[in-house]
This record gives sequence, structure tokens and C-alpha cells, in this order.
Amino acid sequence: MKTYLDCLPCFLHQALRAARMATDDEKKIKLVLDEVGMMLPTISLESTPPESGRRIYQKVHEITGNFDPYKEVKKRSTEEALSLYPYMKSLVEKSDDRLLTAIRMAIAGNVIDFGPNKAFDMKEEIEATLSKDFAICHYDRFKDSLNRSDKVLYIGDNAGECVFDRILIETLDKPVTYAVRGKPVINDATMEDARQAGMVGVAELISSGTDAPGTLLNTCNEEFIRRYDDAELIISKGQGNFEALSTQKKTIFFLLKAKCPIIAKHLGLNVGNIVLKEAEMSA
Amino acid sequence: MKTYLDCLPCFLHQALRAARMATDDEKKIKLVLDEVGMMLPTISLESTPPESGRRIYQKVHEITGNFDPYKEVKKRSTEEALSLYPYMKSLVEKSDDRLLTAIRMAIAGNVIDFGPNKAFDMKEEIEATLSKDFAICHYDRFKDSLNRSDKVLYIGDNAGECVFDRILIETLDKPVTYAVRGKPVINDATMEDARQAGMVGVAELISSGTDAPGTLLNTCNEEFIRRYDDAELIISKGQGNFEALSTQKKTIFFLLKAKCPIIAKHLGLNVGNIVLKEAEMSA
Repeated sequence: MKTYLDCLPCFLHQALRAARMATDDEKKIKLVLDEVGMMLPTISLESTPPESGRRIYQKVHEITGNFDPYKEVKKRSTEEALSLYPYMKSLVEKSDDRLLTAIRMAIAGNVIDFGPNKAFDMKEEIEATLSKDFAICHYDRFKDSLNRSDKVLYIGDNAGECVFDRILIETLDKPVTYAVRGKPVINDATMEDARQAGMVGVAELISSGTDAPGTLLNTCNEEFIRRYDDAELIISKGQGNFEALSTQKKTIFFLLKAKCPIIAKHLGLNVGNIVLKEAEMSA
Repeated sequence: MKTYLDCLPCFLHQALRAARMATDDEKKIKLVLDEVGMMLPTISLESTPPESGRRIYQKVHEITGNFDPYKEVKKRSTEEALSLYPYMKSLVEKSDDRLLTAIRMAIAGNVIDFGPNKAFDMKEEIEATLSKDFAICHYDRFKDSLNRSDKVLYIGDNAGECVFDRILIETLDKPVTYAVRGKPVINDATMEDARQAGMVGVAELISSGTDAPGTLLNTCNEEFIRRYDDAELIISKGQGNFEALSTQKKTIFFLLKAKCPIIAKHLGLNVGNIVLKEAEMSA
């Protein structure tokens, strides 16, 4: 997805939020905003938002000296999600369509995003998402692809959300490789978060290597690219991965909740809509 | 009022909104955002927001070549306000406290602001504002000052709002000088807008000379400064004038509705609160 004009003020908002998370020093926060402001002329509207997000969060880390401002927030959201694991698991087990319920569950987990979002209540979100209509739902195509695939690559998004992804992976009944970010960026899941979520033994864990808040292929490591190229089915979680991969010609299914008005508009949706969408022009 | 960190992303938002109002050319809009971004390091948190607003709207005008993007919007909002004049006038006439009702009316007019605000319905706003409690109400002090004053300087804010100001001025029963901006900036009232609102004959009309979205004294003309220095009572409308004049040691009464969360917080209020507030440490 390209960068829209509306993304530019939002980059400043994101920088402010992240800088405040990283430090109390107003001078440093101002410097972050100054540097991100000066970055704007170098941001092409043809680039994807995570390309800029990457540079913005690098600035936040560099200027504040805090390379993992969301460490504690991530840990707590994983703990909270884990406390709901038995409840979520039982909802999936007793549902008529376990796969679809597990997909909904994974989307419900996508609200755990301290980037563009506010406070939320996990249990309420789960219940709302389980009964909500999909705005885009390529479920039949997803099932076909899943049946035909021996290798599933699942690209995670935020910490905490991993617990929800785990439930979907346990329901897929296929060998899955679960990819996380290579370095901390906002509250995105890293190896440590996936392990805390209980993903070991459930999926093969790999790092994509990226430090962007989305899977920017040119910032990923060789191992991830190999798995990506080989994958017969890719499940991509969240807005950041969608922004980075939406024009890729691969069998990618995007699972997300439209939280940002610009992404919603790009997809022809309303904010709050939930989506299971196959990539266009998939190979 | 000083500039808060939260003002910086908002400056970009305002630039985007104004640039879109001024042109459809995406490249020019991007250039406006780039230039405003590069401006951020030069914006001191000790400066007032209208100082930056002035530079931002100058950029919008300069880059888009449109020096009055809100011309039509302003004209229409004045027409709409004029159509409500008899209705508003009758509400004041039949009220128990004509002065207080006229003050409320003037505050209701302050919603006509295409800077930080969305769509609105004038009549609904009037009715809501007439029955709303003041969050800050220095009404007794205002009446005392008014009784003691022979010269009232009334500083206008937005076009359209002038019609509401006219009703308050007609109720004050004192000679009033009404000051408008020297050049178009956002939807702020200029001489043309005040004339369209029927202010001629009701108050002596002067231009403050400023091209800022607030009364920045160092950008005002000599005549205005003379009137300002001589004024025994100053009525200042809206957020922009408050931001510019809040630390002045003069008998200034600020009439506004808190529309921006940062101003609201600065005043210890909630967004939507209405205020009749005397300047602190007034001479």
C-alpha cells in the first residue's frame, strides 16, 4: 500500500506517542518530532508506510536511547492474553466451524496494538469479533489454499496477539512457520514475545529479521526470504504487514481489523471492519 | 499560551486540511507538508501556537498560490448566520438576562471554525450553548468592567461568528471597536466578512493588521496597538486569540468554547466546555 497524504501527520503522532513511551525528557521528545518533521521531504508517496515507520522508530530509539519502550507493555499484554487462553480455546472447540472461529479469534487479537490505538478490553473485543460480519471474507478460497498447502508461513504482528495466533495455528492442523520481527519496534512481536505466548512446539519460530513495523522484504533476512518464497500459503496478520505486502504476487491471506481510516478507505471499508482477504493477482 | 508537543502533529494536520482546501494538486499538498515538517525544528515550545499557525498558512498560500482558500466557505457561513439573526435576536430579547444570553450566543458562534473542527449545525449549537453551564464564568467581573468602561475593544475570530458577535455588541450598549484580521487566514474574519455580517454602524470596524490566526501583537498595525493600549475592556473571541493573548496583563475577557484537547487541558477543562474568563494578573 502506498503512503497517503494523511499518513504524514499520523507519522508525527506515532513518533510523539512512541517517544513519550520511551522517555519523559521533553527536549528529547521535541528532537524526535523535529527529526521526523525533517524526514517528511524524503518520504515518497510511492513508498509503503512501514518503510517510514521503520525510520521513525529508529529515530525514537536512537534519540531516546530506549530501544524497547514497549517491553513491559508487551509482556503484560501477553500475560493478559494467556489468562484468556483456556476461555478462547473452549469457544473455538465448541463452535460449529472451528476454523472460522479460530480465524475470528486471531483477528480479535489484532486489536492489541499500541501503535495507532487506544485502550481496549480483550474479552469484550473477542466477543464482539466472534459475532461480527466480515466486510471481506475469502474463507472458501482460504480453505482451498489450506487444503492444498503443506507449508504455511504465518507472519505475526503484535505481542499478546501471538496467543490468539497460537489458537488459529493449533486449529490449522498443518506444519506452520511463525515469523516475528527481528528487533523490537512499537509493540510488535519478537522471538521473546512469541516464546512467552507459548508458541514453542506449536509452530516453528523464525525471525523475519526486519526492524520495521511491517514485513518489508528488503529488510528481511535470507532465511525468512527462503521460507517466504517457498511458502504455499502465507497468513499475514495486521495492518503493518498488509501495508508492506499488499501488492505481492503470492498466495497471501490478510487477516486484520481496519483500525486506521486510511487503510479502511484503501480497502473500501469502514474503521472497525474485519477482513479475511486474499492478495490480489496471487500467483 | 505556549506550544505543547501535541501541537506539532496538529500543525501538520492543519496544514493538510488548509492545503486541500486551497488546491487539488497532490504534489503541491505534499510540498506544503514537507515544508511544514522542515519548519518543526524552528518552532520553539516557548512560542505561541498562532506564531506557527501564521507561518504554516503563509506556506499554504505561497505554495498553492491560493491566498484565500476559505473565501466561499466564509461567505456561506456568514449568510447562514445572517439567516438566523432574527431568531437569535428574539432569544436574547425575551431572556431574563439579556447580556448573559448574548454572551452565550457569541460563544455559540465560536463553533464556526473550519480550522480544527468538523461539520456542525448552527441552530443546534445555539440551543445547546444557551442551556449549557459555563466551566469558567467571570460574569460578575465582566459586568463590573463593562460598567466602568467607556471604550470596549472586541477582537473577532471567525467569519460567520461576526453575526453572533454583532448581537453581543448590540446588547453591550457601549461604543465598541471591532477588530478583524488584516489578511485572510483560514476562515478568520476580515473586514469584508465583518461588513457582510452587518457590523457597519454597530461597531467601529478596524483591522488588527495581523495575518496570523490569532492576535499576535508584534504582527499588528500601529492603529490596532493604540486601540489595544487604550482599551479599558477587551473582549477576545476564540482559541487563536486566547493562545496569542492569554499572558497579557490587560483587562481581557476571553469568550470561547474549548474545541482543542490541549487548550482544554491547559485551562483545566474538558473539550466542549464554554468559558467566559478574565485574563490572569490583569492590570
